[in-house]
Amino acid sequence: MSPGIRESLHDYRGENPGVLTNLARLLNHGKLAGTGRMIILPVDQGFEHGPGRSFAPNPAGYDPQYHFELAIEAGLNGYASLLGFLEAGAAEFAGQLPLILKLNSHDILHPEKDPLGAQTASVADALRLGCVGIGYTIYPGTEDRRIQYEQLRELTEEAKAAGLVVVVWAYPRGSGLSKEGETALDVIAYAAQIAAQMGAHIIKTKLPSAHLELPDAKKVYESLNIPRDNLKDRVKHVVQSAFNGKRIVIFSGGAKEDDEALFADARGIRDGGGFGSIIGRNSFQRDKKSALVLLDKLIKIYNSPVGTA
Amino acid sequence: MSPGIRESLHDYRGENPGVLTNLARLLNHGKLAGTGRMIILPVDQGFEHGPGRSFAPNPAGYDPQYHFELAIEAGLNGYASLLGFLEAGAAEFAGQLPLILKLNSHDILHPEKDPLGAQTASVADALRLGCVGIGYTIYPGTEDRRIQYEQLRELTEEAKAAGLVVVVWAYPRGSGLSKEGETALDVIAYAAQIAAQMGAHIIKTKLPSAHLELPDAKKVYESLNIPRDNLKDRVKHVVQSAFNGKRIVIFSGGAKEDDEALFADARGIRDGGGFGSIIGRNSFQRDKKSALVLLDKLIKIYNSPVGTA
Amino acid sequence: MSPGIRESLHDYRGENPGVLTNLARLLNHGKLAGTGRMIILPVDQGFEHGPGRSFAPNPAGYDPQYHFELAIEAGLNGYASLLGFLEAGAAEFAGQLPLILKLNSHDILHPEKDPLGAQTASVADALRLGCVGIGYTIYPGTEDRRIQYEQLRELTEEAKAAGLVVVVWAYPRGSGLSKEGETALDVIAYAAQIAAQMGAHIIKTKLPSAHLELPDAKKVYESLNIPRDNLKDRVKHVVQSAFNGKRIVIFSGGAKEDDEALFADARGIRDGGGFGSIIGRNSFQRDKKSALVLLDKLIKIYNSPVGTA
Amino acid sequence: MSPGIRESLHDYRGENPGVLTNLARLLNHGKLAGTGRMIILPVDQGFEHGPGRSFAPNPAGYDPQYHFELAIEAGLNGYASLLGFLEAGAAEFAGQLPLILKLNSHDILHPEKDPLGAQTASVADALRLGCVGIGYTIYPGTEDRRIQYEQLRELTEEAKAAGLVVVVWAYPRGSGLSKEGETALDVIAYAAQIAAQMGAHIIKTKLPSAHLELPDAKKVYESLNIPRDNLKDRVKHVVQSAFNGKRIVIFSGGAKEDDEALFADARGIRDGGGFGSIIGRNSFQRDKKSALVLLDKLIKIYNSPVGTA
Amino acid sequence: MSPGIRESLHDYRGENPGVLTNLARLLNHGKLAGTGRMIILPVDQGFEHGPGRSFAPNPAGYDPQYHFELAIEAGLNGYASLLGFLEAGAAEFAGQLPLILKLNSHDILHPEKDPLGAQTASVADALRLGCVGIGYTIYPGTEDRRIQYEQLRELTEEAKAAGLVVVVWAYPRGSGLSKEGETALDVIAYAAQIAAQMGAHIIKTKLPSAHLELPDAKKVYESLNIPRDNLKDRVKHVVQSAFNGKRIVIFSGGAKEDDEALFADARGIRDGGGFGSIIGRNSFQRDKKSALVLLDKLIKIYNSPVGTA
Repeated sequence: MSPGIRESLHDYRGENPGVLTNLARLLNHGKLAGTGRMIILPVDQGFEHGPGRSFAPNPAGYDPQYHFELAIEAGLNGYASLLGFLEAGAAEFAGQLPLILKLNSHDILHPEKDPLGAQTASVADALRLGCVGIGYTIYPGTEDRRIQYEQLRELTEEAKAAGLVVVVWAYPRGSGLSKEGETALDVIAYAAQIAAQMGAHIIKTKLPSAHLELPDAKKVYESLNIPRDNLKDRVKHVVQSAFNGKRIVIFSGGAKEDDEALFADARGIRDGGGFGSIIGRNSFQRDKKSALVLLDKLIKIYNSPVGTA
Repeated sequence: MSPGIRESLHDYRGENPGVLTNLARLLNHGKLAGTGRMIILPVDQGFEHGPGRSFAPNPAGYDPQYHFELAIEAGLNGYASLLGFLEAGAAEFAGQLPLILKLNSHDILHPEKDPLGAQTASVADALRLGCVGIGYTIYPGTEDRRIQYEQLRELTEEAKAAGLVVVVWAYPRGSGLSKEGETALDVIAYAAQIAAQMGAHIIKTKLPSAHLELPDAKKVYESLNIPRDNLKDRVKHVVQSAFNGKRIVIFSGGAKEDDEALFADARGIRDGGGFGSIIGRNSFQRDKKSALVLLDKLIKIYNSPVGTA
Repeated sequence: MSPGIRESLHDYRGENPGVLTNLARLLNHGKLAGTGRMIILPVDQGFEHGPGRSFAPNPAGYDPQYHFELAIEAGLNGYASLLGFLEAGAAEFAGQLPLILKLNSHDILHPEKDPLGAQTASVADALRLGCVGIGYTIYPGTEDRRIQYEQLRELTEEAKAAGLVVVVWAYPRGSGLSKEGETALDVIAYAAQIAAQMGAHIIKTKLPSAHLELPDAKKVYESLNIPRDNLKDRVKHVVQSAFNGKRIVIFSGGAKEDDEALFADARGIRDGGGFGSIIGRNSFQRDKKSALVLLDKLIKIYNSPVGTA
Repeated sequence: MSPGIRESLHDYRGENPGVLTNLARLLNHGKLAGTGRMIILPVDQGFEHGPGRSFAPNPAGYDPQYHFELAIEAGLNGYASLLGFLEAGAAEFAGQLPLILKLNSHDILHPEKDPLGAQTASVADALRLGCVGIGYTIYPGTEDRRIQYEQLRELTEEAKAAGLVVVVWAYPRGSGLSKEGETALDVIAYAAQIAAQMGAHIIKTKLPSAHLELPDAKKVYESLNIPRDNLKDRVKHVVQSAFNGKRIVIFSGGAKEDDEALFADARGIRDGGGFGSIIGRNSFQRDKKSALVLLDKLIKIYNSPVGTA
Repeated sequence: MSPGIRESLHDYRGENPGVLTNLARLLNHGKLAGTGRMIILPVDQGFEHGPGRSFAPNPAGYDPQYHFELAIEAGLNGYASLLGFLEAGAAEFAGQLPLILKLNSHDILHPEKDPLGAQTASVADALRLGCVGIGYTIYPGTEDRRIQYEQLRELTEEAKAAGLVVVVWAYPRGSGLSKEGETALDVIAYAAQIAAQMGAHIIKTKLPSAHLELPDAKKVYESLNIPRDNLKDRVKHVVQSAFNGKRIVIFSGGAKEDDEALFADARGIRDGGGFGSIIGRNSFQRDKKSALVLLDKLIKIYNSPVGTA
C-alpha cells in the first residue's frame, strides 16, 4: 500500500474493514492508483437533464456500455451512475472498474424553486451489482432539505453496515440562496461540512467563487481575512472545512468548458489540497478518442507535484 | 431459443435467472413468439375512465373472462390488468397466458391538474396470481412525481428479487408540461430514459409528435438536426433514449383510432426499431371477431421485415 | 351446497380456501341461506352521526347486545359493526352470527368538503373477534381518495391472506362531484368498478338515480342508449359494472324511509340482478318487533322469483 | 370478587385475561375497591400547562414522588401520569398503586386552533414501568383528529395484546366546535361513543352542559325530549352513549373549583350512573392534608347509595 | 462511589443498569468526577452555523481531533458532537472520554421562522462509536414541535433499551414565542419540564431571564411572588421544574461572552442548584492554552461550595 493510500485510510479508521476495503479499491484503481487522488466518471445527466440534451452531442453515450468502456480505457478510479445504466453493464464489466450507484435522482420536467429529487435505487441494489459505494445528492439551501438529510442518513447507516463507501454530492441550491450564493465560498464550505458531519467518506461539490453569501459568515471571513482571491485558496478553505483535509473532497467541472479552463481548475484543485475531479459532460459529450486525450492530461496534472503546470 | 430472444435476454444479463425466465415467457408466447417483438392487451380503463365509458361499446368487456379469451385467441404475448380483473380469471386461465399485474391506478372522479394515482395491488398479489410481471404508471411532469418514483423503486426492488418482470407505463403529464408537450419528442424520450434508469425491463410510452417542449433540449435537437419529421425517426430516437435499444420499448395506441392509422403506427414502430404495441381500447371496444382481425393484421406487420407494408 | 352458493363461490375461485369458507359462511347463514342473496345489518351510525341521533329513536340500540339479537332473530346473513360494538358482544354471541368488522370510521364533528375517515380497527382485531370478514368505506370523488385506496389495499392483502372476506362500502362523495352526482348512475357504476378492481368480494353501494355526472361518460351512455329510467335497469348496470355480476353487489337503504319505498327498492334490486341489501337505520331505529316484521318482508321479497311482488 | 367488580368485568368478557386482570387490579384497589366505582389522580399538567402554573400553588407537586404518595395515602384507585413522572417513582412505589401511563401530550407554547399533541411514550414503556394501563387523549372536533384516532388505534391494539387497560381521554375541542359546544351534551355523548367504539375500556370525559351543538342532533334531542336539565340526567345520557353503561365512564373536574361544587358534581355523576372521577388540579394544587380531606369526602360520596348526600 | 454520584443515580433508579452505568461514567469522569456536577464540550456549530463562522477564529477547530484533545486535557466530563466529528476520532481516542452523539442537526441555509432540523445519526451509530449517550434538540414554541417530540420519543425508547443516556437540548424557539420569550423564565422552566416528562436523563437549556411570556403563567408567578430577580433564583426555579432537582439540568453559555460573565453565570448555576455547564464556542473559539485556563477556572467554581466566588 502506497503512503498516499495509507494516510487516507488512516483518517477513516473509525470505519469497519468493509468500508476501508472498498475505499482502498477506489483509491488503488486506475492511473491515479496509490496517489490518494482520484478522477471519477459520473453519468446521471440522462435523468437530470434528459437523454437528447445529454447524449446527442456524442450518440455513443446513449449506450450504457460506452461509459464503462470510457472509464476503463481512461484509467479512471471509478464510474458513478444510476440503477438502469449500471444494471445494463455490471455483469459484462464485472470486476473491471469500481462502481458507485447513485441512489437519488431529479428530473426537470416540472418547474420548481427547490429541487428535491427521489430515491431511485437502494443499498441492496448497490450490493447485488457489485458496487464499492453509493452516491446521494443533497441540496443545502432548499426548503425540504430535511427530507434529503434524513433519507441520506438512513442510506448511510445501511451502506456503512454493508461495507460500502458513501459519496455525497453536496450541491447548494434552492430558495434559501441567491443564484450567486450557490457557489459562494462560505456556502460551498458549509455544504462540505454538512456532508462530512453526516458521515460522507467522499464529498463532491462545486468549485467555489470568491462571493460570500451569509451575512454572519461574511463578517467573520472578512474580519479574519480568510484568503479567497484565487482558486487554490478557495479549494484550500473547502478542504479545511471538510475536517481539515481528513475527508476526501473532489470537485465537479459543471457544464461543458474550454479544455484549458478545465486544466487550470485541476491545477487549482491539486494545489489547494483537493483530492480530484468528477468529470461528466466534459468527457462523455465528445468522441472517445478526444475524451481519452483530455482525461489523460487531467490525470497527468494530478500526478504532478503541487505548483507545476 | 430464437436469435431474437437470445439477443433480447443478453441485454438483461445483469438480472437474476428468475427475471430472465419470466421475460423469456413473455417473449416466447403467442404469434410473435421468438421475434423479440410483442403485443400486449392492457385493460385498466374501467378504473381509469369508468366502466360504462370503457365497456359499454362492447359489453362483453364488462366480464373479466372476456379479456383473457381475447388475448389468448389473438395470440398476444400477454395481458396486463388490475387486481380485480386478474383475480377473477387467473385460476380459470392458469398457465394459458403471461399476465402482468398493474400495481397502481388512477380514477377521474376528482378534477386535478396533476394525476397521482394510488397503489392498488402488490408484488405479493402478482406472485399469488401467477403473473410474469408487474406494471406501474409514472407521470413525469407532475408535481408529485417523487411519490410515484419512490413507490415504483420499492416495488421494482421487490419484484426483481422475486424474479418478476417490471413494466413501466411512462406517460408524461401534469402541470409541468403543455398539452402538446405531453407527447413532445424530447419529453417522450425523457420519460423513456427515466423509466430505463429506474430499472424498467419493458417501457410503455406514447407515440411522440415532432414537437419539442423543453427550451434547453430544443436547442440541442435543432442544432444537431436530430431527425423528427416522420414517425419512424421519432420512434428511433425514443428507442435510442432507452439505452440505445437495450431496453424493450412498446407504444400505446391511445384513444380509439382508425384502423389504417393503427397499421401505419405499427409500421412506424417496427421500422424505427420499436418492440411492439400495447393495444387496449382499439381491441376490446369492438366485437371479438373484428378485434381478432385487427390484432392479426398488427401481428403480421410486426412479423414482416422492416420497410414492408 | 345449493346451486346459488356454488355459482357464487365459483366466481371467486381465484381466492384461497379460507376466503371461500368465510364467504360460504355468510351466504349459508340465516333465512336467505343458499339463495346467493343476502341482507346484512350494519351499525356504524353511532360513530358516523353520533349516538343520540342514531339510537335515541329506539334506545335499545344504545346497547351493543341489541344488534346481535336483532340480526340473529331476524335471520339475517350477518352483522357489520365497529370494534367497540363487536368487542362488547362477540364473546356472548360467539358462533351464532357471521360478523364483519368495519375497519375505518368517520365522524362529523368537524365540517369538511371531503370526508376521509380514519382506520379504527385492524385485520388482527377481526381475527381475534371471530369475524368472517372486514369492511372498509371508500369515498370516490374526494381529493384524498388515494389515502383511502392505499389503506384499503394494505388491509385487503392482509385480510385475504388470513382468509377473511373483504366488503367495501363504495360511497361516491366529495368535492369532485355535485350533490346529485353522488348517486348518479355513471358514478355509482364507477365506484362499484373501483371496489371490484381493488379486490372487494362484496360491494356495498347506494341505489343510483338516472342522473349522469361525468360529461365523457354521459356522451357514451346517451349515444348507446343505456337504459336507466327504472331502478331495475340501473341496478342491472351497476351489477354489470361489477364484473358482469361476478362480484356480489348489495345496496344500502340510506336514511329512514317509508316501508313501501323500501320494498319497492328491494324488488328493483332483486329484479336487476342485485344480491341484496344492507339495512341499518331502517331496522334498528324502530322497536324490535316492528323491525322483525320489516326484515321478514324484505327476506320474502328476496326469496321470491324475479318480477314478483 | 365483589358483585360490582364481577358485573363490570362481565361487560368486558370479549377481552383477554390479561386485560381483565389489570382492570380488576384497578377496580379492586383503594377505598373504592369492589364498588365498581373509581377515582383516579391524573398529573399531566406540567406538560399541558407548564410546571409553574401547575405546581407553584403547592410546590410539593414539583416532585414526582409527591403524587404517588398522595394517591396512595388517599386510597385512590390509580395514578395516571407521563413518562418522566412515572419513571421517577415507579421503582420506589412498585406494586403499591395501579399506574396508567399517558402516551400522548400537548403543550401550549405555540398558539393553534386545533390541538393535536404528540406521542410521548409507548406501550413498551408502560410494560417496563409495571403499569396496569395506558392513557391517550383524543380531541374530537379538530381537523386532524384522524391522526389521533389512527395513533390511538395502533396503541390500543398493542396494549390489549399485552394485557393492558386502555383509558381514553375524550375531550371535544377544535375548530369544528363552538366554545360552548366543547361541553355540549350531544358532543360529549358523541365523544364518549367514539372512544367506546374505538375499544376504550375506560372513558374519561368532561361533565356536559345542557347545550346542544350539532343541528341534526339537536332536532332529535328536542323532538324526543331527551332530559338534560340536571347533571344527573346528562351524566345518564353520556353513560348510555357509552354502550348503555357497559363501558366505564369517569368525569374530570376541570379547573380548580369550589369544593361544594365538586361534591355536587360527584353526586350527579354517581346518581346518573357514572363510574367516578378523575381529580387532578383540585387535589394536587392544595397541600396534602387538605387534599386528603377532599378526596376522602369524594370517596364517601361514591361509597354512598344513589340519591344520598 | 462518591455520595454525590450515589444520590444522582438514586434519582434514576427506574432505569436499567445499562443506563445507570453510562450515567455513572459521565459523572465519574474528569476533574468534576464524583461531585454530581458536570461540564460538557459540545461541538455542533459547524452544522448549525457553518464551518468558517465556527472554526476560523481558532482554525485548529476545523480538525475533529482537536475537540477530543481539548475535552480530555481540560478534564471535562464528556464531549458531545455530530456523527462525522465523532467517527473521525472515536477510534483514536477510544475509552479516553465519554462521548455523546447528537442525533439531530439544523443548518441555516434556508430562512425559516420555525426551525425543525433533521435526524442525522442513529442510536446504532452511538453504540458502534462507543458513546455513553445520545443528544437531541427540541424547539418548544415551533409549529412542528410534534415531529421533534415524536422523533425524540422513538430515539429515547431505543437508546434506553440499549443502556444509553439521553441528553435533551431543550431550546425554546419559534413563531409561538416572542424573541424575549425564548429565554423567559416560565418558558425555560416549561421546556425543562417537557424534556423531563419525555424521559430525558440530562437536560440542557439556556439561562433564563426574568421575563415572563405566557399570560396565564405570568399571573401565577406574580401572584405567588416566585423570586426571579437574580440568576440563582431563576436557576433554582428551572431545576425545581425538572422534577424538583431529580433530573440533571445543565446550562449553555450561548454566544461568545466576556469571561467574567461566564464565571458569574457558573456561580449562579452552582448556587441555584444547577448541575453544570455546556461550554462550546466560549472554549473552542480561542486557542487551546487560554481555553484550558478558562475551563479550569470554571471547574474550580463548580468544585467550590455554594455561595463562594
